[in-house]
Amino acid sequence: MPNAAQPLDLLLLPSWLVPVEPAGVVLKEHGLGIRDGNIVFIGPRTEALALQATEIRELPGMLLTPGLVNAHGHAAMALFRGLADDLPLMTWLKDHIWPAEARWVDEDFVRDGTDLAIAEQLQGGITCFSDMYFYPRIAAERVHHSGMRAQISIPVLDFPIPGARNADEALHQGVELFNDLKHHPRLSIAFGPHAPYTVGDENLEKIRVLADELDAAIQMHVHETADEVAQAVAERGERPLARLARLGLLGPRLQTVHMTQISDDDLALLVESNTSVVHCPESNLKLASGFCPVERLWQAGVNVAIGTDGAASNNDLDLLGETRTAALLAKAVAGNATALDAHRALRMATLNGARALGLEACIGSLEVGKAADITAFDLSGLAQQPVYDPVSQLIYATGRDCVKHVWVAGKILLDNRQLTRLDEQDLAATAARWGQRIGARHE
Amino acid sequence: MPNAAQPLDLLLLPSWLVPVEPAGVVLKEHGLGIRDGNIVFIGPRTEALALQATEIRELPGMLLTPGLVNAHGHAAMALFRGLADDLPLMTWLKDHIWPAEARWVDEDFVRDGTDLAIAEQLQGGITCFSDMYFYPRIAAERVHHSGMRAQISIPVLDFPIPGARNADEALHQGVELFNDLKHHPRLSIAFGPHAPYTVGDENLEKIRVLADELDAAIQMHVHETADEVAQAVAERGERPLARLARLGLLGPRLQTVHMTQISDDDLALLVESNTSVVHCPESNLKLASGFCPVERLWQAGVNVAIGTDGAASNNDLDLLGETRTAALLAKAVAGNATALDAHRALRMATLNGARALGLEACIGSLEVGKAADITAFDLSGLAQQPVYDPVSQLIYATGRDCVKHVWVAGKILLDNRQLTRLDEQDLAATAARWGQRIGARHE
Repeated sequence: MPNAAQPLDLLLLPSWLVPVEPAGVVLKEHGLGIRDGNIVFIGPRTEALALQATEIRELPGMLLTPGLVNAHGHAAMALFRGLADDLPLMTWLKDHIWPAEARWVDEDFVRDGTDLAIAEQLQGGITCFSDMYFYPRIAAERVHHSGMRAQISIPVLDFPIPGARNADEALHQGVELFNDLKHHPRLSIAFGPHAPYTVGDENLEKIRVLADELDAAIQMHVHETADEVAQAVAERGERPLARLARLGLLGPRLQTVHMTQISDDDLALLVESNTSVVHCPESNLKLASGFCPVERLWQAGVNVAIGTDGAASNNDLDLLGETRTAALLAKAVAGNATALDAHRALRMATLNGARALGLEACIGSLEVGKAADITAFDLSGLAQQPVYDPVSQLIYATGRDCVKHVWVAGKILLDNRQLTRLDEQDLAATAARWGQRIGARHE
Repeated sequence: MPNAAQPLDLLLLPSWLVPVEPAGVVLKEHGLGIRDGNIVFIGPRTEALALQATEIRELPGMLLTPGLVNAHGHAAMALFRGLADDLPLMTWLKDHIWPAEARWVDEDFVRDGTDLAIAEQLQGGITCFSDMYFYPRIAAERVHHSGMRAQISIPVLDFPIPGARNADEALHQGVELFNDLKHHPRLSIAFGPHAPYTVGDENLEKIRVLADELDAAIQMHVHETADEVAQAVAERGERPLARLARLGLLGPRLQTVHMTQISDDDLALLVESNTSVVHCPESNLKLASGFCPVERLWQAGVNVAIGTDGAASNNDLDLLGETRTAALLAKAVAGNATALDAHRALRMATLNGARALGLEACIGSLEVGKAADITAFDLSGLAQQPVYDPVSQLIYATGRDCVKHVWVAGKILLDNRQLTRLDEQDLAATAARWGQRIGARHE
């Protein structure tokens, strides 16, 4: 029981509460108490109502879950949403996205694009996201102001990028940003070497040294397509994951994104090193990249998180929808309808994401002592009736429009679907202006 | 131009209008005029404003498309939504769904379940659906009252079902219903032999004779899983589709649902006979049934429609989401990111559905002379910004919560997200009551 002498800041009384840890549990008639941004009480409604609380919220028909963790994306690319569709990965990148980035991406773009992505993600029940994009200091600043939680990955490539003339400059900026923010309660800085085919051994080794020194995470696109692996084998005689292992990059701090190609040796490397995989099913489908064998990874003990990827490829930042796709797809890929059931899918979208990002001590489940990062879903709509199992309904029958309230570190950032710190109309107008400028040039 | 002497009943002025036919066209600054339930004008805004109209609706930020056609489902099963999840098809059917149906399905169940399904589908932009469930006369009556359009398929199995002691009784009821409703402007009656493994040759031959006589459509689950095909080959030495061909059932009036297994011979049979396929991607994924090769079918000239399947398996009646899944999945299955692009996906969800149901002369595209079955999507939200191509945004970035208005035969059935003929609260309460009764028994 929390200290009874000190009142709760907020007591939430939902119809259902799914803590994610312990696994598979659905609590009915329970309350959740928050003080100083943290969860300090979870218990039966009757006990909850005996506590002092500054604010009490009855949430009838609502399901409380840990806030969703979007473990991979490129936030500011929201401004390129739908700019170039229905194209293969390399055509999309080389003929459309990279030229558009060269033409348009500057600090203003990243500021406005990141704000748009933050707003969309909050509206979709996401409380924490991983970002990998140019001008990471700008992105970090937007996250700071928004009240959201994020991992900002410093993009590193062997060639010049917007905001950094070369990899050394990018790394230097990254280390500075890391040090500036190392005590920030909601921001963590990671290294983001783009992919095995865009970052050579020399820069990967530098990243390994710096990440070891700073105890920083690393996020990287790895084995996104069969072509990537085949080309690496042809050119270097080595699969990319094996190369990362040789360079000493595998480990619990590494987040490998996509991983549609997994040989038995790859799986053994992931398991032994305790490396996380970030699954981006809709991006993999849309770009025809392949199928990540999620159930096989899960059963082998690999931590599998989930990400939306950037809105330019996908074309939304809807983690609930992404999780539904993952849950449906895993069954067909495994040839087994019991694969990735609804409860495990929710775990992938919360606690596994937190673990991938190194944040599992702080977020990812509703447990006393963790930060109050919480999403309230309204399951009272027609499309959710009847409710036999709220987790089944959440994963298989509920859209992100049912997200009603979102708290990060106990602060309400979405209240009855209204953003509390961002101006929705202003953001939409700004995005539309970017769209007009970019679209006119692109046509 | 419409007869200028007679005013339009309604003139719609959206930001974008996608007629579907001709293919790939996006009209900006256009208006659509309706009189007596039909589309009588599509033309530039300036011309539209010169016409007399009883009502004019400005629809800024909105996209008009043909109403979505849900070409396969089991409407009343909405009351079993999420009752039994994450199970293989035969376990799900034999251990859960069939016992629940035996226990619960009666006329009241079908009335309340069909109303729930109609409401959910209207809220999701669907104007026409295909139903295959027990007590089809009750379902037809609910459709009649709702103002929606539907094909009601008379379920036929070799064993007794709720409402019919045997196949002959079901067929007799079906013929009666067909004759009673043959002049109904929004209802068509089809035969619904459940599947090759539940209907023997004798009953299939009767259905062929009756369907030929009445010029009625036939909808049937075919090749849903690899097991179904393997078992048929083992038992009969014949693939189910080949058996249907031998029995004379293939043809433009036949709607084969699922078709995850397609050999070269199967494909040739479908093409030669002009038989339609109804793709249900989320059901196929969730039950691990397999992958329908949509792009291969499409390129061969087969008409591919799309259906949600019943909410008990899937667990929603969200055809827009289903279409997004289909568009994403088709690319990965074909190994080609250009497969089933956004415009073709929308065509699959509208005109191809109309064609499968034999309704393409009346609905499925926004063309002068067709019925005014229309959906207005609001693309002004943050998650749709910026809008480079409204069809890309619709298919890849828009949820059914963006459905704003729905008209069927010119009558508004969803107005600013409010159902005009059904009481949402009443429906939710009724569904919740069923859920409590069924759930208590099931646990």
